[in-house]
Amino acid sequence: MLYEINEKALKLESQGKKIIKLNIGDPDLATPTEIIEAAYDAMKRGKTKYSSAYGEKSLREKLSNVHNVYADNVIITLGAKWGVFSTMYLLLKDGGNVVIPSPYWTAYGLIAKNLGAEIKLVKTELDSNWKIDLETLESLIDRDTRMIILNNPRNPTSSIIDEKVLDGIVRIANDKGITILSDEVYADISFVKTKRILEYGGDHILVTGFSKTFTMTGWRIGYVIANTGLVEKLAKLNQITLTNVPVFIQEAALKALELQSELTGEIKREYYERAKLACDILSKTSLKFSRPSAPFYIFPKCRGLDSEKFALSLLDDGVAVAPGTSFGDYREHFRISLTAPRNDLKKALNKICEATLE
Amino acid sequence: MLYEINEKALKLESQGKKIIKLNIGDPDLATPTEIIEAAYDAMKRGKTKYSSAYGEKSLREKLSNVHNVYADNVIITLGAKWGVFSTMYLLLKDGGNVVIPSPYWTAYGLIAKNLGAEIKLVKTELDSNWKIDLETLESLIDRDTRMIILNNPRNPTSSIIDEKVLDGIVRIANDKGITILSDEVYADISFVKTKRILEYGGDHILVTGFSKTFTMTGWRIGYVIANTGLVEKLAKLNQITLTNVPVFIQEAALKALELQSELTGEIKREYYERAKLACDILSKTSLKFSRPSAPFYIFPKCRGLDSEKFALSLLDDGVAVAPGTSFGDYREHFRISLTAPRNDLKKALNKICEATLE
Repeated sequence: MLYEINEKALKLESQGKKIIKLNIGDPDLATPTEIIEAAYDAMKRGKTKYSSAYGEKSLREKLSNVHNVYADNVIITLGAKWGVFSTMYLLLKDGGNVVIPSPYWTAYGLIAKNLGAEIKLVKTELDSNWKIDLETLESLIDRDTRMIILNNPRNPTSSIIDEKVLDGIVRIANDKGITILSDEVYADISFVKTKRILEYGGDHILVTGFSKTFTMTGWRIGYVIANTGLVEKLAKLNQITLTNVPVFIQEAALKALELQSELTGEIKREYYERAKLACDILSKTSLKFSRPSAPFYIFPKCRGLDSEKFALSLLDDGVAVAPGTSFGDYREHFRISLTAPRNDLKKALNKICEATLE
Repeated sequence: MLYEINEKALKLESQGKKIIKLNIGDPDLATPTEIIEAAYDAMKRGKTKYSSAYGEKSLREKLSNVHNVYADNVIITLGAKWGVFSTMYLLLKDGGNVVIPSPYWTAYGLIAKNLGAEIKLVKTELDSNWKIDLETLESLIDRDTRMIILNNPRNPTSSIIDEKVLDGIVRIANDKGITILSDEVYADISFVKTKRILEYGGDHILVTGFSKTFTMTGWRIGYVIANTGLVEKLAKLNQITLTNVPVFIQEAALKALELQSELTGEIKREYYERAKLACDILSKTSLKFSRPSAPFYIFPKCRGLDSEKFALSLLDDGVAVAPGTSFGDYREHFRISLTAPRNDLKKALNKICEATLE
């Protein structure tokens, strides 16, 4: 229902209604000027042609330095989402199942369903601080399991997978010869340090992107780091689907990486303040929630709530949130994206508090 | 082998070698300045966010006027290639076969193969001026046929499907309830008028893009016009793969359409001159070919040639062309893209003439 709500919110907006959109992970912050100028400069230099399906050499090399891998292990994708889709497409094409901790990012489920793959959920709960139970996870793996998908930091809870738990998951995966796809799009702006999948070695896959780290959501650029065999297959898939990410966008991303420390410090600070503000407001209600360890979601629980009806009715009040059912079996939860200026956020949070009181 | 040659050409270039690249349909012409400025302007206005998986309303409406359909029938795709892939993905997901006149654009075959669909080719020959035989086409259609793919004007021959033949294909398709996907990326800059699939009504699909018409290849933007049911399915697929084409690119495309008559006149003239130049040079050899009716390929035949070996050895001489085997069973043919400035083109064509004499 996540995408339906978004299309409805866009429609209402196009009719002139003011909607505070806290339903998707699309920040209100502007893409930094330096990144825009780099794209413009590249366009003027003629970087508007077809290019390699692997991505530009300069960007792959830069990323290989950042992640301490070979450039041949890096492939540029059309956003992290295409990284996830194309990897799942290759690994789940012939069926099988995928193990995913829930609540989980909507797209994993929709992609698996679209590919005809079975989804096996490791349900986690607010009450146990979203802890992933290793025994449950291990018990779900069978001979048809093709991959485990992790999202760390996690969407929609903005929680971090505990390092020991992550160690355990990797151990299980390695023992059973299962590939982990680790989606780490929030890791570079996390409030606390997270352990990264590449630190473990082994034949696992990192998927991430520039969208969240640099407020480049609508630019559609991300990357996958994997073994060269998979990178080659992904490039072949790019060749028959997208050709390549526009080169001027790749040059903008390269500029973003060069300025990473100065650009992301500011972005992270703003999200931290918003998370604090939201926690302050929500903690005065009976809503239960865990404090975000990373940008930029809160996933409160309201006893007895039907979050789908709630989200639809809240939309008529000018606030868009995502129902918990979009992330698994979480009807009493809803997801707030802290992706509006603080003033709007305050207004929206107050409306949410009122609405959950009713 | 088309994409392998391209990656090899890019590699040679990155090693500092000068390669005249006539192997892919990527013009040397620059994207018109007005289009670049429109993109830059949109970026600065914050058009850098997620947006509708259907595409921007303004662009869909403009295109609906151009093609005399409803805006709901239009969906913006990541280049025409994604339009082709995603439509084939939806129609051929559960197997079946697809009927395609050959020689055909490489990607159709690779996509079908990737999806596990069978390809049934209606072979056409230079000697009969690439005429599609209706009886052969009809005889290939069976209960598992899911679609017919046409490309008009055709790649790699730059020939136009004769209007009476097209009438016949549509009649057969309608009689048998088969959908035609008509890829018309070269139609707006064709040297002669071509009949368009939408003129027939019926439940057929137009796929096209901005790449060739406006020299926007590397921007990755195209569109599909189809019934609303298919448009909705394509949007759902966009949601789990690409999200949306960057809005600033969609605004650039809108500007392109606004300036279409002035921009494309010039582009078309240049290709016409190049085609003339190439025909003049090649007609002095024993190569056989048909004169292009549209930009921007020539597909000569050289008796006894192994075009794969030929293309690889020519690459070492600094000229990249595509072997005929990339377009079907055409080992004696090769494809020249007229996508270099006239001086380079002349040099390359002379090298090609020399090489085919050997």
